[in-house]
Amino acid sequence: MTPEQKNILVVNDDGITAKGIRNLIQAMLPLGKVTVVAPDKPQSGMGHAVTIHGIIRARAYDMHMDPAIDAWTCSGTPVDAVKLALAHLMPQKPDLVVSGINHGSNSSINVIYSGTMSAAVEGAVEGIPSIGFSLLDWDADADFDAAAHYAQIIAQKVLSFGIPKHTCLNVNIPKGPLNSIKGVKVCRQAKAIWKENFEKRTDPMGHDYFWMTGSFHNLDHGEDTDEFALAHNYVSVVPVQHDLTAYHFMQELNDWNF
Amino acid sequence: MTPEQKNILVVNDDGITAKGIRNLIQAMLPLGKVTVVAPDKPQSGMGHAVTIHGIIRARAYDMHMDPAIDAWTCSGTPVDAVKLALAHLMPQKPDLVVSGINHGSNSSINVIYSGTMSAAVEGAVEGIPSIGFSLLDWDADADFDAAAHYAQIIAQKVLSFGIPKHTCLNVNIPKGPLNSIKGVKVCRQAKAIWKENFEKRTDPMGHDYFWMTGSFHNLDHGEDTDEFALAHNYVSVVPVQHDLTAYHFMQELNDWNF
Repeated sequence: MTPEQKNILVVNDDGITAKGIRNLIQAMLPLGKVTVVAPDKPQSGMGHAVTIHGIIRARAYDMHMDPAIDAWTCSGTPVDAVKLALAHLMPQKPDLVVSGINHGSNSSINVIYSGTMSAAVEGAVEGIPSIGFSLLDWDADADFDAAAHYAQIIAQKVLSFGIPKHTCLNVNIPKGPLNSIKGVKVCRQAKAIWKENFEKRTDPMGHDYFWMTGSFHNLDHGEDTDEFALAHNYVSVVPVQHDLTAYHFMQELNDWNF
Repeated sequence: MTPEQKNILVVNDDGITAKGIRNLIQAMLPLGKVTVVAPDKPQSGMGHAVTIHGIIRARAYDMHMDPAIDAWTCSGTPVDAVKLALAHLMPQKPDLVVSGINHGSNSSINVIYSGTMSAAVEGAVEGIPSIGFSLLDWDADADFDAAAHYAQIIAQKVLSFGIPKHTCLNVNIPKGPLNSIKGVKVCRQAKAIWKENFEKRTDPMGHDYFWMTGSFHNLDHGEDTDEFALAHNYVSVVPVQHDLTAYHFMQELNDWNF
């Protein structure tokens, strides 16, 4: 590694064998030295979970790509993978953490459930410029060409310009070929909700169990949201922070006279 | 239940058998009809994880408290428990979701890792006034008297005054007897970080594994933070939202000319 070469950590939540992470690695290779630490199994929907009451294993893994890549599997969550990479596996702090490319959207409310985005948020917590990438296609064999193209452009801009400490980017890319995408829009997170339906079944032993299913409802008519951009075939870029304080409600709360 | 009686959902992340949830139930009983849906095992550090690739079970459970309490265990995460309660187990939408009382702090950065707080955030996502309560004592047999006292006062205020839709409260209570606590302070989330240390061990089969340990570092010198309030023996109340957009960085991002 040359002194000016950038150090890039690649993580995801779909696991080390997912097509999306291979495409993200390929997109990052021209930008620097790539280290991969990814879950050894799918970890979608794990949010910001961490393994505090169990053990974590890490194993060296051959991506069968560029031999300069250092890759590891991690038995834990996406956030575990970032913590393990930064505290133990990487010889030096990376210049960039990229997560994904997720198979499926992480726009609007999905950001809080997403292992992909929680890994990026964890990078930001640690003070490292971080980006989560998601493609609006859940197919295991989805076409990641356009997503990888934009991942490279956006990662390069973050490496060049920097982003404010403890901030990361939530990037979602519409499904479709590169020439169908109209460009990039900086957005806010749309107000949306999942309406759950628990499908009740009975197991062979006669006991009930549930499958959680749900439908996504965009409650936001704004034209400055990620949902609006994606619906109009733009890549959405939402800057994300982890200070959850609802500042707008502090004054009123103070008036409650506890 | 009388028409004017409030409907209260009680959840937690330490599991149905934890001392903290029994204290929270006891504190809520004078305020309304209590339904409990809690994990069937400890789920600390689960963040906003949801079970999307596995099944969920729910079983009726006898708390051996007031017979008017409806209680269930849930095999999933704290957020699963809230979703299952709202979509399936409760006959009507609750007026209040309370989570905890957690065994241990959920102040500052802990809010993003906390199953307790993610359950409260999920209540807020669903548009229900929600509060997470945490006691700064990790002991399984901690003294919850002061925490339960403040939980009842704050829940009563939320039921009386309401809170803005999609907002919840993160309440942390110092350890110690009631007369040692000086009052309640409305605060912002302190900037803080966990510095992890991965302790490497070798299993009986000769394979390496890790335990994640860490130390908490408050990076924030502000006197308006939850950490400051707690350090000075005040109950901290932080209003919390789940719009993660870093609005302060949007203009600069727009100047990147994608």
